[in-house]
Amino acid sequence: MSAELMIGTDLAAEMVAKAAERARVLQEQYGVQPCLATVLVGDDPASATYVRMKQNRSKKAGIASRSVVLPASTTTDELVAEITKLSDDPAVHGILLQHPVPPQIDERAAFEAIDPGKDVDGVTMRSFAAMAFGDPGFRSATPGGIMRLLAAYDVPLEGAHAVVIGRSPILGKPAGMLLLASNATVTYAHSRTRDLPALVRTADVVIAAVGKANFVRGDWLKPGAVVVDAGYNEGNVGDVHFAEAAEVARLITPVPGGVGPMTIALLLEQTLDAAETAVQSLTTLA
Amino acid sequence: MSAELMIGTDLAAEMVAKAAERARVLQEQYGVQPCLATVLVGDDPASATYVRMKQNRSKKAGIASRSVVLPASTTTDELVAEITKLSDDPAVHGILLQHPVPPQIDERAAFEAIDPGKDVDGVTMRSFAAMAFGDPGFRSATPGGIMRLLAAYDVPLEGAHAVVIGRSPILGKPAGMLLLASNATVTYAHSRTRDLPALVRTADVVIAAVGKANFVRGDWLKPGAVVVDAGYNEGNVGDVHFAEAAEVARLITPVPGGVGPMTIALLLEQTLDAAETAVQSLTTLA
Repeated sequence: MSAELMIGTDLAAEMVAKAAERARVLQEQYGVQPCLATVLVGDDPASATYVRMKQNRSKKAGIASRSVVLPASTTTDELVAEITKLSDDPAVHGILLQHPVPPQIDERAAFEAIDPGKDVDGVTMRSFAAMAFGDPGFRSATPGGIMRLLAAYDVPLEGAHAVVIGRSPILGKPAGMLLLASNATVTYAHSRTRDLPALVRTADVVIAAVGKANFVRGDWLKPGAVVVDAGYNEGNVGDVHFAEAAEVARLITPVPGGVGPMTIALLLEQTLDAAETAVQSLTTLA
Repeated sequence: MSAELMIGTDLAAEMVAKAAERARVLQEQYGVQPCLATVLVGDDPASATYVRMKQNRSKKAGIASRSVVLPASTTTDELVAEITKLSDDPAVHGILLQHPVPPQIDERAAFEAIDPGKDVDGVTMRSFAAMAFGDPGFRSATPGGIMRLLAAYDVPLEGAHAVVIGRSPILGKPAGMLLLASNATVTYAHSRTRDLPALVRTADVVIAAVGKANFVRGDWLKPGAVVVDAGYNEGNVGDVHFAEAAEVARLITPVPGGVGPMTIALLLEQTLDAAETAVQSLTTLA
Protein backbone atom coordinates (compact mmCIF):
# COMPACT_ATOMS: atom_id res chain seq x y z
CA MET A 1 0.00 0.00 0.00
CA SER A 2 1.36 3.36 -1.07
CA ALA A 3 -1.53 5.72 -0.29
CA GLU A 4 -1.69 7.91 2.77
CA LEU A 5 -4.83 7.41 4.85
CA MET A 6 -7.31 10.22 5.35
CA ILE A 7 -8.36 9.39 8.88
CA GLY A 8 -11.62 10.86 10.05
CA THR A 9 -11.47 9.56 13.61
CA ASP A 10 -9.00 12.07 15.04
CA LEU A 11 -10.35 15.07 13.19
CA ALA A 12 -13.87 14.10 14.25
CA ALA A 13 -12.75 13.79 17.87
CA GLU A 14 -11.35 17.35 17.72
CA MET A 15 -14.64 18.59 16.26
CA VAL A 16 -16.64 16.83 18.98
CA ALA A 17 -14.35 18.32 21.66
CA LYS A 18 -14.93 21.81 20.26
CA ALA A 19 -18.67 21.18 20.18
CA ALA A 20 -18.51 20.07 23.82
CA GLU A 21 -16.74 23.32 24.75
CA ARG A 22 -19.40 25.36 22.96
CA ALA A 23 -22.13 23.34 24.71
CA ARG A 24 -20.48 24.08 28.08
CA VAL A 25 -20.52 27.81 27.32
CA LEU A 26 -24.19 27.73 26.32
CA GLN A 27 -25.04 25.87 29.51
CA GLU A 28 -23.00 28.16 31.76
CA GLN A 29 -23.88 31.49 30.23
CA TYR A 30 -27.48 30.89 29.22
CA GLY A 31 -28.56 27.78 31.08
CA VAL A 32 -29.39 26.12 27.77
CA GLN A 33 -28.41 22.58 26.89
CA PRO A 34 -28.27 21.94 23.14
CA CYS A 35 -30.72 19.21 22.16
CA LEU A 36 -30.74 16.93 19.13
CA ALA A 37 -33.96 15.03 18.41
CA THR A 38 -33.48 11.72 16.62
CA VAL A 39 -36.38 10.11 14.80
CA LEU A 40 -36.17 6.42 13.99
CA VAL A 41 -38.96 4.68 12.09
CA GLY A 42 -39.15 0.90 11.98
CA ASP A 43 -36.94 -1.99 13.04
CA ASP A 44 -33.91 -1.83 10.76
CA PRO A 45 -31.03 -2.89 13.04
CA ALA A 46 -28.41 -0.88 11.11
CA SER A 47 -30.51 2.27 11.42
CA ALA A 48 -31.00 1.64 15.13
CA THR A 49 -27.21 1.29 15.50
CA TYR A 50 -26.57 4.55 13.65
CA VAL A 51 -29.05 6.42 15.83
CA ARG A 52 -27.53 4.97 18.99
CA MET A 53 -24.04 5.99 17.83
CA LYS A 54 -25.26 9.53 17.17
CA GLN A 55 -26.87 9.68 20.61
CA ASN A 56 -23.71 8.42 22.30
CA ARG A 57 -21.54 11.00 20.54
CA SER A 58 -24.11 13.68 21.36
CA LYS A 59 -23.71 12.86 25.02
CA LYS A 60 -19.93 13.23 24.72
CA ALA A 61 -20.46 16.64 23.17
CA GLY A 62 -22.80 17.78 25.95
CA ILE A 63 -25.81 17.57 23.65
CA ALA A 64 -29.04 16.17 25.05
CA SER A 65 -30.87 13.58 22.96
CA ARG A 66 -34.60 13.49 22.44
CA SER A 67 -35.36 10.04 21.07
CA VAL A 68 -38.48 9.43 19.00
CA VAL A 69 -39.03 5.82 17.90
CA LEU A 70 -41.98 5.01 15.67
CA PRO A 71 -43.32 1.66 14.46
CA ALA A 72 -42.59 0.36 10.94
CA SER A 73 -46.28 0.87 10.12
CA THR A 74 -46.11 4.64 10.64
CA THR A 75 -47.81 6.67 7.91
CA THR A 76 -46.42 9.77 6.23
CA ASP A 77 -48.99 11.93 8.01
CA GLU A 78 -48.08 10.49 11.40
CA LEU A 79 -44.37 11.00 10.80
CA VAL A 80 -44.89 14.54 9.50
CA ALA A 81 -46.97 15.30 12.62
CA GLU A 82 -44.21 14.02 14.92
CA ILE A 83 -41.52 16.01 13.11
CA THR A 84 -43.69 19.12 13.08
CA LYS A 85 -44.03 18.84 16.86
CA LEU A 86 -40.25 18.77 17.16
CA SER A 87 -39.95 21.69 14.73
CA ASP A 88 -42.31 23.70 16.93
CA ASP A 89 -40.63 22.76 20.22
CA PRO A 90 -38.21 25.52 21.32
CA ALA A 91 -36.28 23.05 23.52
CA VAL A 92 -35.23 21.07 20.42
CA HIS A 93 -32.38 22.64 18.41
CA GLY A 94 -31.70 20.02 15.80
CA ILE A 95 -33.73 17.24 14.17
CA LEU A 96 -32.34 14.09 12.59
CA LEU A 97 -34.65 11.74 10.70
CA GLN A 98 -32.69 8.53 10.21
CA HIS A 99 -32.62 7.48 6.56
CA PRO A 100 -34.07 5.26 5.14
CA VAL A 101 -37.70 5.21 6.26
CA PRO A 102 -40.13 2.36 5.49
CA PRO A 103 -41.31 2.30 1.87
CA GLN A 104 -44.90 3.47 2.51
CA ILE A 105 -43.56 6.81 3.80
CA ASP A 106 -42.93 9.82 1.57
CA GLU A 107 -39.45 10.57 2.88
CA ARG A 108 -39.27 13.93 1.12
CA ALA A 109 -42.47 15.10 2.83
CA ALA A 110 -41.02 14.01 6.16
CA PHE A 111 -37.73 15.82 5.54
CA GLU A 112 -39.59 19.00 4.56
CA ALA A 113 -41.42 18.97 7.91
CA ILE A 114 -38.07 19.78 9.54
CA ASP A 115 -37.82 23.48 10.41
CA PRO A 116 -35.02 24.84 8.16
CA GLY A 117 -33.36 26.29 11.27
CA LYS A 118 -33.19 22.82 12.83
CA ASP A 119 -32.05 20.92 9.73
CA VAL A 120 -28.70 19.96 11.27
CA ASP A 121 -28.47 16.85 9.07
CA GLY A 122 -28.87 18.99 5.93
CA VAL A 123 -31.67 17.08 4.25
CA THR A 124 -34.25 19.74 3.34
CA MET A 125 -34.69 21.20 -0.13
CA ARG A 126 -33.66 24.57 1.24
CA SER A 127 -30.39 23.22 2.63
CA PHE A 128 -29.68 21.49 -0.67
CA ALA A 129 -30.21 24.67 -2.66
CA ALA A 130 -28.06 26.62 -0.19
CA MET A 131 -25.22 24.13 -0.79
CA ALA A 132 -25.73 24.41 -4.54
CA PHE A 133 -25.74 28.20 -4.51
CA GLY A 134 -22.83 28.57 -2.07
CA ASP A 135 -25.10 30.19 0.50
CA PRO A 136 -24.65 29.80 4.24
CA GLY A 137 -26.74 27.04 5.74
CA PHE A 138 -26.58 23.51 7.04
CA ARG A 139 -24.62 21.01 4.98
CA SER A 140 -25.76 17.44 4.41
CA ALA A 141 -23.80 15.69 7.14
CA THR A 142 -21.82 13.20 5.05
CA PRO A 143 -20.92 15.54 2.15
CA GLY A 144 -20.16 18.31 4.63
CA GLY A 145 -17.94 15.91 6.59
CA ILE A 146 -16.17 14.87 3.39
CA MET A 147 -15.39 18.50 2.54
CA ARG A 148 -13.87 19.00 6.00
CA LEU A 149 -11.74 15.90 5.57
CA LEU A 150 -10.50 17.04 2.15
CA ALA A 151 -9.65 20.45 3.62
CA ALA A 152 -7.80 18.91 6.56
CA TYR A 153 -5.61 16.95 4.15
CA ASP A 154 -5.06 20.03 1.94
CA VAL A 155 -6.55 18.38 -1.13
CA PRO A 156 -6.52 20.99 -3.91
CA LEU A 157 -10.01 21.23 -5.42
CA GLU A 158 -9.90 24.31 -7.63
CA GLY A 159 -9.80 23.09 -11.21
CA ALA A 160 -9.53 19.46 -10.11
CA HIS A 161 -11.81 16.94 -11.80
CA ALA A 162 -14.05 15.36 -9.18
CA VAL A 163 -16.16 12.37 -10.15
CA VAL A 164 -19.04 11.63 -7.80
CA ILE A 165 -20.40 8.11 -8.21
CA GLY A 166 -23.97 8.13 -6.96
CA ARG A 167 -26.65 10.80 -6.99
CA SER A 168 -28.82 10.40 -3.91
CA PRO A 169 -30.44 13.57 -2.52
CA ILE A 170 -28.50 13.52 0.76
CA LEU A 171 -25.15 12.15 -0.41
CA GLY A 172 -24.08 12.19 -4.05
CA LYS A 173 -25.99 15.25 -5.22
CA PRO A 174 -24.97 17.59 -2.38
CA ALA A 175 -21.39 16.26 -2.46
CA GLY A 176 -21.15 17.31 -6.10
CA MET A 177 -22.62 20.73 -5.36
CA LEU A 178 -20.15 21.37 -2.53
CA LEU A 179 -17.23 20.31 -4.72
CA LEU A 180 -18.51 22.63 -7.47
CA ALA A 181 -18.71 25.48 -4.95
CA SER A 182 -15.02 24.77 -4.27
CA ASN A 183 -14.35 25.28 -7.98
CA ALA A 184 -13.80 21.64 -8.91
CA THR A 185 -14.98 20.46 -12.30
CA VAL A 186 -17.66 17.99 -11.20
CA THR A 187 -19.03 14.93 -12.98
CA TYR A 188 -22.02 13.00 -11.66
CA ALA A 189 -21.77 9.32 -12.56
CA HIS A 190 -24.38 6.68 -11.80
CA SER A 191 -25.85 3.34 -12.84
CA ARG A 192 -26.57 4.53 -16.41
CA THR A 193 -23.09 5.97 -16.97
CA ARG A 194 -21.27 4.37 -19.89
CA ASP A 195 -17.75 3.03 -19.30
CA LEU A 196 -17.57 4.15 -15.71
CA PRO A 197 -13.99 2.83 -15.24
CA ALA A 198 -12.73 5.05 -18.07
CA LEU A 199 -14.53 8.06 -16.61
CA VAL A 200 -13.18 7.43 -13.11
CA ARG A 201 -9.65 7.21 -14.59
CA THR A 202 -9.97 10.90 -15.53
CA ALA A 203 -10.71 11.91 -11.90
CA ASP A 204 -8.34 13.72 -9.58
CA VAL A 205 -10.86 13.19 -6.77
CA VAL A 206 -13.26 10.25 -6.59
CA ILE A 207 -16.26 10.23 -4.27
CA ALA A 208 -17.75 6.74 -4.04
CA ALA A 209 -21.32 6.99 -2.80
CA VAL A 210 -23.03 4.13 -4.50
CA GLY A 211 -23.75 1.59 -1.76
CA LYS A 212 -22.13 -1.45 -3.39
CA ALA A 213 -19.33 -3.29 -1.62
CA ASN A 214 -15.90 -3.10 -3.29
CA PHE A 215 -17.46 -1.54 -6.39
CA VAL A 216 -14.63 0.82 -7.39
CA ARG A 217 -11.54 -1.17 -8.40
CA GLY A 218 -7.90 -0.21 -8.29
CA ASP A 219 -7.46 -0.21 -12.07
CA TRP A 220 -10.24 2.39 -12.37
CA LEU A 221 -8.07 4.98 -10.65
CA LYS A 222 -5.63 7.48 -12.02
CA PRO A 223 -2.33 7.07 -10.16
CA GLY A 224 -2.19 9.71 -7.45
CA ALA A 225 -5.95 10.18 -7.23
CA VAL A 226 -7.66 11.14 -3.99
CA VAL A 227 -10.29 8.56 -3.08
CA VAL A 228 -13.13 9.18 -0.65
CA ASP A 229 -15.20 6.15 0.22
CA ALA A 230 -18.62 7.19 1.52
CA GLY A 231 -19.95 3.66 1.35
CA TYR A 232 -20.61 1.45 4.31
CA ASN A 233 -21.82 -1.99 3.37
CA GLU A 234 -22.38 -5.19 5.26
CA GLY A 235 -19.24 -6.50 6.92
CA ASN A 236 -17.67 -3.03 7.40
CA VAL A 237 -16.82 -2.83 3.71
CA GLY A 238 -16.81 0.38 1.70
CA ASP A 239 -17.72 1.07 -1.92
CA VAL A 240 -14.04 1.02 -2.91
CA HIS A 241 -11.87 -2.10 -3.11
CA PHE A 242 -9.52 -0.76 -0.47
CA ALA A 243 -6.50 -3.03 -0.96
CA GLU A 244 -6.41 -2.42 -4.71
CA ALA A 245 -7.14 1.31 -4.50
CA ALA A 246 -4.54 1.94 -1.80
CA GLU A 247 -1.84 0.78 -4.26
CA VAL A 248 -2.79 3.47 -6.78
CA ALA A 249 -4.24 6.40 -4.85
CA ARG A 250 -2.30 9.18 -3.18
CA LEU A 251 -4.85 9.61 -0.41
CA ILE A 252 -7.69 7.30 0.59
CA THR A 253 -10.24 7.09 3.40
CA PRO A 254 -10.35 3.85 5.38
CA VAL A 255 -13.68 2.15 6.12
CA PRO A 256 -14.46 2.36 8.98
CA GLY A 257 -12.67 5.38 10.44
CA GLY A 258 -12.81 7.64 7.39
CA VAL A 259 -16.02 9.36 6.38
CA GLY A 260 -18.27 7.84 9.07
CA PRO A 261 -16.95 9.71 12.11
CA MET A 262 -16.87 12.96 10.12
CA THR A 263 -20.59 12.61 9.36
CA ILE A 264 -21.47 12.42 13.04
CA ALA A 265 -19.04 15.18 14.00
CA LEU A 266 -20.57 17.55 11.45
CA LEU A 267 -24.05 16.67 12.70
CA LEU A 268 -23.04 17.63 16.24
CA GLU A 269 -21.22 20.78 15.14
CA GLN A 270 -24.31 21.89 13.22
CA THR A 271 -26.49 21.14 16.24
CA LEU A 272 -24.32 23.60 18.18
CA ASP A 273 -24.67 26.13 15.35
CA ALA A 274 -28.45 25.77 15.57
CA ALA A 275 -28.52 26.00 19.36
CA GLU A 276 -26.30 29.11 19.39
CA THR A 277 -28.46 30.78 16.75
CA ALA A 278 -31.59 29.98 18.77
CA VAL A 279 -30.05 31.38 21.96
CA GLN A 280 -28.84 34.50 20.14
CA SER A 281 -32.28 35.20 18.72
CA LEU A 282 -33.82 34.79 22.19
CA THR A 283 -31.18 37.11 23.66
CA THR A 284 -31.83 39.70 20.97
CA LEU A 285 -35.56 39.51 21.59
CA ALA A 286 -35.15 39.91 25.36
CA MET B 1 -22.69 23.19 -42.66
CA SER B 2 -23.64 19.62 -41.95
CA ALA B 3 -25.63 19.92 -38.70
CA GLU B 4 -29.38 19.87 -38.52
CA LEU B 5 -30.87 22.90 -36.77
CA MET B 6 -32.84 22.54 -33.56
CA ILE B 7 -35.33 25.31 -34.15
CA GLY B 8 -37.15 26.61 -31.13
CA THR B 9 -39.40 29.06 -32.93
CA ASP B 10 -41.96 26.58 -34.29
CA LEU B 11 -42.08 24.40 -31.21
CA ALA B 12 -42.46 27.49 -29.04
CA ALA B 13 -45.31 28.74 -31.24
CA GLU B 14 -47.11 25.41 -30.73
CA MET B 15 -46.62 25.69 -26.97
CA VAL B 16 -47.93 29.25 -26.94
CA ALA B 17 -50.97 28.18 -29.00
CA LYS B 18 -51.72 25.42 -26.51
CA ALA B 19 -51.34 27.86 -23.63
CA ALA B 20 -53.77 30.21 -25.40
CA GLU B 21 -56.30 27.40 -25.68
CA ARG B 22 -55.96 26.63 -21.96
CA ALA B 23 -56.33 30.33 -21.15
CA ARG B 24 -59.53 30.44 -23.21
CA VAL B 25 -60.95 27.50 -21.25
CA LEU B 26 -60.09 29.11 -17.91
CA GLN B 27 -61.76 32.33 -19.02
CA GLU B 28 -64.88 30.63 -20.36
CA GLN B 29 -65.41 28.08 -17.63
CA TYR B 30 -64.26 30.03 -14.59
CA GLY B 31 -64.13 33.65 -15.69
CA VAL B 32 -60.45 33.77 -14.74
CA GLN B 33 -57.78 35.31 -16.93
CA PRO B 34 -54.29 33.98 -16.19
CA CYS B 35 -52.00 36.79 -15.08
CA LEU B 36 -48.21 37.03 -15.18
CA ALA B 37 -46.59 39.81 -13.15
CA THR B 38 -43.28 41.04 -14.50
CA VAL B 39 -40.89 42.94 -12.26
CA LEU B 40 -38.19 45.04 -13.89
CA VAL B 41 -35.67 46.93 -11.76
CA GLY B 42 -33.48 49.62 -13.30
CA ASP B 43 -32.79 50.89 -16.79
CA ASP B 44 -30.93 48.09 -18.55
CA PRO B 45 -32.24 48.27 -22.14
CA ALA B 46 -31.70 44.53 -22.81
CA SER B 47 -33.72 43.63 -19.71
CA ALA B 48 -36.47 46.04 -20.74
CA THR B 49 -36.56 44.37 -24.16
CA TYR B 50 -36.81 40.88 -22.64
CA VAL B 51 -39.66 41.95 -20.40
CA ARG B 52 -41.50 43.56 -23.30
CA MET B 53 -41.07 40.38 -25.38
CA LYS B 54 -42.47 38.29 -22.55
CA GLN B 55 -45.44 40.64 -22.18
CA ASN B 56 -46.13 40.53 -25.92
CA ARG B 57 -46.07 36.74 -26.01
CA SER B 58 -48.24 36.65 -22.89
CA LYS B 59 -50.85 38.67 -24.72
CA LYS B 60 -50.77 36.19 -27.64
CA ALA B 61 -51.36 33.40 -25.14
CA GLY B 62 -54.33 35.14 -23.52
CA ILE B 63 -52.31 35.91 -20.39
CA ALA B 64 -52.74 39.32 -18.77
CA SER B 65 -49.58 41.17 -17.79
CA ARG B 66 -49.11 43.07 -14.57
CA SER B 67 -46.10 45.28 -15.07
CA VAL B 68 -44.04 46.49 -12.12
CA VAL B 69 -41.15 48.80 -12.98
CA LEU B 70 -38.86 49.99 -10.21
CA PRO B 71 -36.01 52.51 -10.26
CA ALA B 72 -32.36 51.42 -10.37
CA SER B 73 -31.98 52.75 -6.81
CA THR B 74 -34.48 50.22 -5.38
CA THR B 75 -33.33 48.50 -2.19
CA THR B 76 -33.62 44.81 -1.42
CA ASP B 77 -36.31 45.52 1.16
CA GLU B 78 -38.35 47.57 -1.28
CA LEU B 79 -38.10 44.89 -3.96
CA VAL B 80 -38.96 42.12 -1.52
CA ALA B 81 -41.99 44.15 -0.39
CA GLU B 82 -43.21 44.56 -3.99
CA ILE B 83 -42.76 40.88 -4.77
CA THR B 84 -44.46 39.88 -1.52
CA LYS B 85 -47.46 41.98 -2.53
CA LEU B 86 -47.65 40.08 -5.82
CA SER B 87 -47.21 36.77 -3.98
CA ASP B 88 -50.18 37.66 -1.78
CA ASP B 89 -52.40 38.90 -4.61
CA PRO B 90 -54.81 36.13 -5.71
CA ALA B 91 -55.28 37.79 -9.11
CA VAL B 92 -51.60 37.17 -9.94
CA HIS B 93 -50.77 33.60 -10.97
CA GLY B 94 -47.13 33.89 -11.94
CA ILE B 95 -44.26 36.21 -11.02
CA LEU B 96 -41.19 36.92 -13.14
CA LEU B 97 -38.34 38.99 -11.71
CA GLN B 98 -36.16 39.94 -14.66
CA HIS B 99 -32.53 38.94 -14.09
CA PRO B 100 -30.14 40.65 -13.45
CA VAL B 101 -31.08 43.20 -10.79
CA PRO B 102 -28.87 46.19 -9.84
CA PRO B 103 -25.83 45.23 -7.75
CA GLN B 104 -27.03 46.67 -4.43
CA ILE B 105 -29.93 44.20 -4.40
CA ASP B 106 -29.72 40.72 -2.87
CA GLU B 107 -31.21 38.89 -5.83
CA ARG B 108 -31.57 35.63 -3.92
CA ALA B 109 -33.67 37.36 -1.22
CA ALA B 110 -35.85 38.84 -3.96
CA PHE B 111 -36.30 35.47 -5.69
CA GLU B 112 -37.23 33.83 -2.38
CA ALA B 113 -40.04 36.37 -1.89
CA ILE B 114 -41.81 34.71 -4.82
CA ASP B 115 -44.57 32.38 -3.61
CA PRO B 116 -43.42 28.87 -4.62
CA GLY B 117 -46.80 28.35 -6.31
CA LYS B 118 -46.19 31.40 -8.52
CA ASP B 119 -42.56 30.68 -9.37
CA VAL B 120 -43.29 30.20 -13.08
CA ASP B 121 -39.75 31.26 -14.03
CA GLY B 122 -38.31 28.55 -11.75
CA VAL B 123 -35.86 30.67 -9.77
CA THR B 124 -36.58 29.81 -6.11
CA MET B 125 -34.49 27.46 -4.02
CA ARG B 126 -37.48 25.16 -3.75
CA SER B 127 -37.88 24.93 -7.53
CA PHE B 128 -34.16 24.24 -7.90
CA ALA B 129 -34.26 21.40 -5.38
CA ALA B 130 -37.37 19.98 -7.06
CA MET B 131 -35.49 19.89 -10.37
CA ALA B 132 -32.51 18.26 -8.67
CA PHE B 133 -34.64 15.62 -6.94
CA GLY B 134 -36.84 14.88 -9.94
CA ASP B 135 -39.90 16.17 -8.10
CA PRO B 136 -42.80 17.90 -9.82
CA GLY B 137 -42.57 21.67 -9.79
CA PHE B 138 -41.69 24.64 -11.94
CA ARG B 139 -38.58 24.36 -14.08
CA SER B 140 -36.15 27.23 -14.58
CA ALA B 141 -37.45 28.61 -17.85
CA THR B 142 -34.33 28.30 -20.00
CA PRO B 143 -33.19 24.86 -18.79
CA GLY B 144 -36.78 23.62 -18.92
CA GLY B 145 -37.08 24.98 -22.46
CA ILE B 146 -33.82 23.27 -23.45
CA MET B 147 -35.12 19.92 -22.17
CA ARG B 148 -38.27 20.31 -24.27
CA LEU B 149 -36.19 21.11 -27.33
CA LEU B 150 -33.95 18.06 -26.79
CA ALA B 151 -37.04 15.90 -26.38
CA ALA B 152 -38.64 17.29 -29.55
CA TYR B 153 -35.54 16.35 -31.53
CA ASP B 154 -35.37 12.90 -29.88
CA VAL B 155 -31.92 13.47 -28.46
CA PRO B 156 -31.04 10.36 -26.45
CA LEU B 157 -29.95 11.42 -22.95
CA GLU B 158 -29.78 8.19 -20.97
CA GLY B 159 -26.11 7.36 -20.50
CA ALA B 160 -25.04 10.25 -22.72
CA HIS B 161 -22.27 12.49 -21.45
CA ALA B 162 -23.60 16.02 -21.12
CA VAL B 163 -21.16 18.83 -20.44
CA VAL B 164 -22.73 22.01 -19.08
CA ILE B 165 -20.45 25.02 -19.44
CA GLY B 166 -21.53 27.55 -16.82
CA ARG B 167 -22.99 27.16 -13.37
CA SER B 168 -25.35 30.04 -12.68
CA PRO B 169 -28.27 29.34 -10.32
CA ILE B 170 -30.96 29.80 -12.96
CA LEU B 171 -29.22 28.38 -16.02
CA GLY B 172 -26.18 26.11 -15.76
CA LYS B 173 -26.91 24.48 -12.43
CA PRO B 174 -30.56 23.60 -13.08
CA ALA B 175 -29.74 22.52 -16.65
CA GLY B 176 -27.28 19.98 -15.26
CA MET B 177 -29.79 18.72 -12.70
CA LEU B 178 -32.50 18.23 -15.33
CA LEU B 179 -30.06 16.35 -17.57
CA LEU B 180 -29.05 14.19 -14.61
CA ALA B 181 -32.73 13.45 -13.91
CA SER B 182 -32.90 12.23 -17.52
CA ASN B 183 -30.06 9.81 -16.71
CA ALA B 184 -27.29 11.63 -18.53
CA THR B 185 -23.81 11.57 -17.05
CA VAL B 186 -23.38 15.26 -16.28
CA THR B 187 -20.22 17.33 -16.00
CA TYR B 188 -20.27 20.93 -14.78
CA ALA B 189 -17.49 22.95 -16.40
CA HIS B 190 -16.67 26.59 -15.66
CA SER B 191 -13.99 29.25 -15.62
CA ARG B 192 -11.67 27.18 -13.40
CA THR B 193 -11.98 24.01 -15.47
CA ARG B 194 -8.64 22.80 -16.81
CA ASP B 195 -8.37 22.05 -20.54
CA LEU B 196 -11.99 22.82 -21.29
CA PRO B 197 -11.62 21.97 -25.02
CA ALA B 198 -10.48 18.42 -24.18
CA LEU B 199 -13.38 18.01 -21.76
CA VAL B 200 -15.94 19.29 -24.26
CA ARG B 201 -14.56 16.84 -26.84
CA THR B 202 -15.83 13.99 -24.61
CA ALA B 203 -19.38 15.36 -24.64
CA ASP B 204 -22.32 13.85 -26.51
CA VAL B 205 -24.38 16.88 -25.52
CA VAL B 206 -22.93 20.34 -24.91
CA ILE B 207 -24.89 23.08 -23.14
CA ALA B 208 -23.16 26.44 -23.54
CA ALA B 209 -24.36 28.80 -20.82
CA VAL B 210 -21.36 30.95 -20.19
CA GLY B 211 -22.27 34.38 -21.60
CA LYS B 212 -19.22 34.86 -23.84
CA ALA B 213 -19.66 35.42 -27.56
CA ASN B 214 -18.34 32.63 -29.83
CA PHE B 215 -16.63 30.99 -26.86
CA VAL B 216 -17.07 27.33 -27.82
CA ARG B 217 -15.12 26.55 -30.99
CA GLY B 218 -15.70 23.91 -33.64
CA ASP B 219 -12.56 21.93 -32.84
CA TRP B 220 -13.76 21.54 -29.23
CA LEU B 221 -16.61 19.32 -30.40
CA LYS B 222 -16.84 15.59 -30.87
CA PRO B 223 -18.13 14.90 -34.37
CA GLY B 224 -21.85 14.22 -34.11
CA ALA B 225 -22.31 16.07 -30.83
CA VAL B 226 -25.57 17.83 -29.97
CA VAL B 227 -24.91 21.50 -29.24
CA VAL B 228 -27.31 23.73 -27.33
CA ASP B 229 -26.38 27.39 -27.26
CA ALA B 230 -28.06 29.13 -24.34
CA GLY B 231 -25.97 32.26 -24.77
CA TYR B 232 -27.24 35.52 -26.14
CA ASN B 233 -24.57 38.15 -26.43
CA GLU B 234 -24.38 41.57 -28.00
CA GLY B 235 -25.01 41.50 -31.73
CA ASN B 236 -27.32 38.45 -31.61
CA VAL B 237 -24.35 36.14 -31.09
CA GLY B 238 -24.43 32.98 -29.01
CA ASP B 239 -21.80 31.34 -26.82
CA VAL B 240 -20.93 28.89 -29.60
CA HIS B 241 -19.03 29.80 -32.77
CA PHE B 242 -21.95 28.75 -34.94
CA ALA B 243 -20.27 28.45 -38.35
CA GLU B 244 -17.48 26.25 -37.00
CA ALA B 245 -19.71 24.18 -34.74
CA ALA B 246 -22.29 23.53 -37.45
CA GLU B 247 -19.60 21.72 -39.46
CA VAL B 248 -18.97 19.20 -36.68
CA ALA B 249 -22.20 18.85 -34.72
CA ARG B 250 -25.13 16.60 -35.58
CA LEU B 251 -27.70 18.98 -34.11
CA ILE B 252 -27.27 22.61 -33.12
CA THR B 253 -29.52 25.45 -31.96
CA PRO B 254 -29.38 28.68 -33.94
CA VAL B 255 -29.07 32.04 -32.17
CA PRO B 256 -31.58 33.61 -32.29
CA GLY B 257 -34.45 31.19 -32.84
CA GLY B 258 -33.15 28.29 -30.78
CA VAL B 259 -33.30 28.39 -26.99
CA GLY B 260 -34.72 31.92 -26.64
CA PRO B 261 -38.28 31.29 -27.83
CA MET B 262 -38.40 28.06 -25.79
CA THR B 263 -37.60 30.00 -22.63
CA ILE B 264 -40.58 32.29 -23.10
CA ALA B 265 -42.87 29.46 -24.17
CA LEU B 266 -42.06 27.50 -21.03
CA LEU B 267 -42.65 30.58 -18.91
CA LEU B 268 -46.13 30.96 -20.40
CA GLU B 269 -46.92 27.27 -20.14
CA GLN B 270 -45.95 27.33 -16.46
CA THR B 271 -48.08 30.43 -15.91
CA LEU B 272 -51.04 28.40 -17.20
CA ASP B 273 -50.06 25.53 -14.88
CA ALA B 274 -50.07 27.96 -11.95
CA ALA B 275 -53.37 29.55 -12.95
CA GLU B 276 -55.07 26.17 -13.39
CA THR B 277 -53.81 25.00 -10.00
CA ALA B 278 -55.06 28.20 -8.38
CA VAL B 279 -58.49 27.82 -9.99
CA GLN B 280 -58.67 24.15 -9.02
CA SER B 281 -57.89 24.89 -5.39
CA LEU B 282 -60.57 27.60 -5.36
CA THR B 283 -63.05 25.19 -6.92
CA THR B 284 -62.21 22.53 -4.36
CA LEU B 285 -62.61 25.00 -1.52
CA ALA B 286 -65.98 26.23 -2.82
